[in-house]
Amino acid sequence: MHERELSHDGGHTYVLVCDKGDDAIRELEAFARRNQVAAASFTAIGAFRDVTLGYFDREIMDYRRNEVHEQVEVLSCIGDVAVRDGEPTVHAHVVVGRRDGTTRGGHLIESSVWPTLEVVLTETPDELRKTVDPQTGLALIDVARS
Amino acid sequence: MHERELSHDGGHTYVLVCDKGDDAIRELEAFARRNQVAAASFTAIGAFRDVTLGYFDREIMDYRRNEVHEQVEVLSCIGDVAVRDGEPTVHAHVVVGRRDGTTRGGHLIESSVWPTLEVVLTETPDELRKTVDPQTGLALIDVARS
Amino acid sequence: MHERELSHDGGHTYVLVCDKGDDAIRELEAFARRNQVAAASFTAIGAFRDVTLGYFDREIMDYRRNEVHEQVEVLSCIGDVAVRDGEPTVHAHVVVGRRDGTTRGGHLIESSVWPTLEVVLTETPDELRKTVDPQTGLALIDVARS
Repeated sequence: MHERELSHDGGHTYVLVCDKGDDAIRELEAFARRNQVAAASFTAIGAFRDVTLGYFDREIMDYRRNEVHEQVEVLSCIGDVAVRDGEPTVHAHVVVGRRDGTTRGGHLIESSVWPTLEVVLTETPDELRKTVDPQTGLALIDVARS
Repeated sequence: MHERELSHDGGHTYVLVCDKGDDAIRELEAFARRNQVAAASFTAIGAFRDVTLGYFDREIMDYRRNEVHEQVEVLSCIGDVAVRDGEPTVHAHVVVGRRDGTTRGGHLIESSVWPTLEVVLTETPDELRKTVDPQTGLALIDVARS
Repeated sequence: MHERELSHDGGHTYVLVCDKGDDAIRELEAFARRNQVAAASFTAIGAFRDVTLGYFDREIMDYRRNEVHEQVEVLSCIGDVAVRDGEPTVHAHVVVGRRDGTTRGGHLIESSVWPTLEVVLTETPDELRKTVDPQTGLALIDVARS
């Protein structure tokens, strides 16, 4: 495990509320780029009317897409913001709840919020950098280089 | 998406530990009212011996109740505190784990903690206001009015 | 419910990134002991190639083990650090996502990270103490004694 302490001065906390029809990742990345957020973590709850969940398939070294075309509660959404190739990128995982209380989950690829998604995001003045892991092709947070 | 920065001075963090038999939402709302918390977010883990999970059903524009009458781990509980009609209200979503490791989840309606629920709650000196969304009848955080 | 306010000065936030093959609990406890962390909370996302999930079984007053021997997304990992018998101990619950988007979850017993686990941990200068609950034999956070 690698570790890095973040600055505890000059951080900011935001409440971000997505509207009906918003794609959560697209809105969060636009926010991060507009505000030049280079290191942040967040949690969120709310609901989607449609969502595509990713599962990283080691056989093909790529994401398999599991699509959930129904109204679901967003039971948990946990994520972070880090910098890849000079641009803030958002990484989030979600668990969603169906009509009968059963759940699905994955890496958040696409979503359509309905009626709301309430995000609490804490930014620090640091920069977390992602570098590509040669084995998987995934961009992972690299605290040694951050 | 609407955004609002929260004050980063004067915030407080609390550890709240529910006892056997406590209803989590009722205890958290009593805490928020006692301490006049008008904006907060929290996470929690623990276990319930009984829980009622909500799913917002678009057909009837109301919550469907999924009851889980068994001992379950509280795998994630993410929530926030905001003000509705002048009173702090708690909104939380949970994922719970059953004996065989399968999960259920939803909007947290009623619960009976057993043996513990460990909550870490961060309050800010701001006020987040909820207003009723006319389409759904739900009270949603309205950062424009907060 | 019992409550305790934590100090809001002198806290630290860390980003901890587990490597391929790391056991998450073992790494987090080693970190907490090395840095004498006596009160903290964290969230994490990432993936495991193997994980053992606990369910507290009231019949035997001990954890039942549910083993998931496959690559899974770590959809949520929420936990805390508190002191038991003078040593920092880590308590975490996880929800993991399988190839088809279904989920499993439980108390995190053992894990093998692959390829990453991104943890954001916030420490406070306080000490949270655990004491053994005589009914269950579990060490629970005891804010009255902390």
